Amino acid sequence: MADEQSEVLDTNASFYTAFAGRDYEAMEALWSSASVTVCVHPGWPPIRGREEVMKSFRSIFEHDTGPSPTCEAPTCHVIGTGAFVVCRERLGNAVLIATNVYARESGQWRLVHHHASALAQVPATPELDSEMLPN
Amino acid sequence: MADEQSEVLDTNASFYTAFAGRDYEAMEALWSSASVTVCVHPGWPPIRGREEVMKSFRSIFEHDTGPSPTCEAPTCHVIGTGAFVVCRERLGNAVLIATNVYARESGQWRLVHHHASALAQVPATPELDSEMLPN
Repeated sequence: MADEQSEVLDTNASFYTAFAGRDYEAMEALWSSASVTVCVHPGWPPIRGREEVMKSFRSIFEHDTGPSPTCEAPTCHVIGTGAFVVCRERLGNAVLIATNVYARESGQWRLVHHHASALAQVPATPELDSEMLPN
Repeated sequence: MADEQSEVLDTNASFYTAFAGRDYEAMEALWSSASVTVCVHPGWPPIRGREEVMKSFRSIFEHDTGPSPTCEAPTCHVIGTGAFVVCRERLGNAVLIATNVYARESGQWRLVHHHASALAQVPATPELDSEMLPN
């Protein structure tokens, strides 16, 4: 289980490396070809299907001039042949929260779902993880 | 697979029924006791661990006077012993997008992760599913 968590976290790191480098081929290789894929960019409705998801990344890489997200504080939870990572994404001064769902396919972890959304400034309360609040 | 999808969607419907009815016991029964659980309420940082997640629902049920989300257009994707649902949540005039991750535990699907976030008004483009846009 610890090895699997570490593999998923490595794949999750590769996702953000591909994002930061606007590396379309690396991004394409990271997404599942075998499962249905879904992607929720911040504030967007869900994009469904590998072809449309990849089009959205191509469009972001070609046209979006803003900063790319870097990944902070990822935690990984393996559920059989699936896994999900919850992490913070920092884009300049903005902080997002992302859920990334992975499926194990032919020995490799592949993205099947990405959901990123803005983090509002909320007061710290005991039930919140203060480390996850924006600086 | 079709049966499993239907089971997961039934469980997902029960989640929103418990939410709408502010039924703490039903909500508690829906969340996993066996796996690590995480919850991202809209704009909040992740809440980690069953006890803290349940505290957050108790607090919402007791203190939040706004509308509860109703579920629209859910789609389910089963990955082995895990599954995730992506759906629209409508709260009065607001529209959110939710990712709900489930694990199969002792024959029952249990929530292990909920991530809801605001949907911005974005222009319809070919790669977006227009049915997922707010009315």
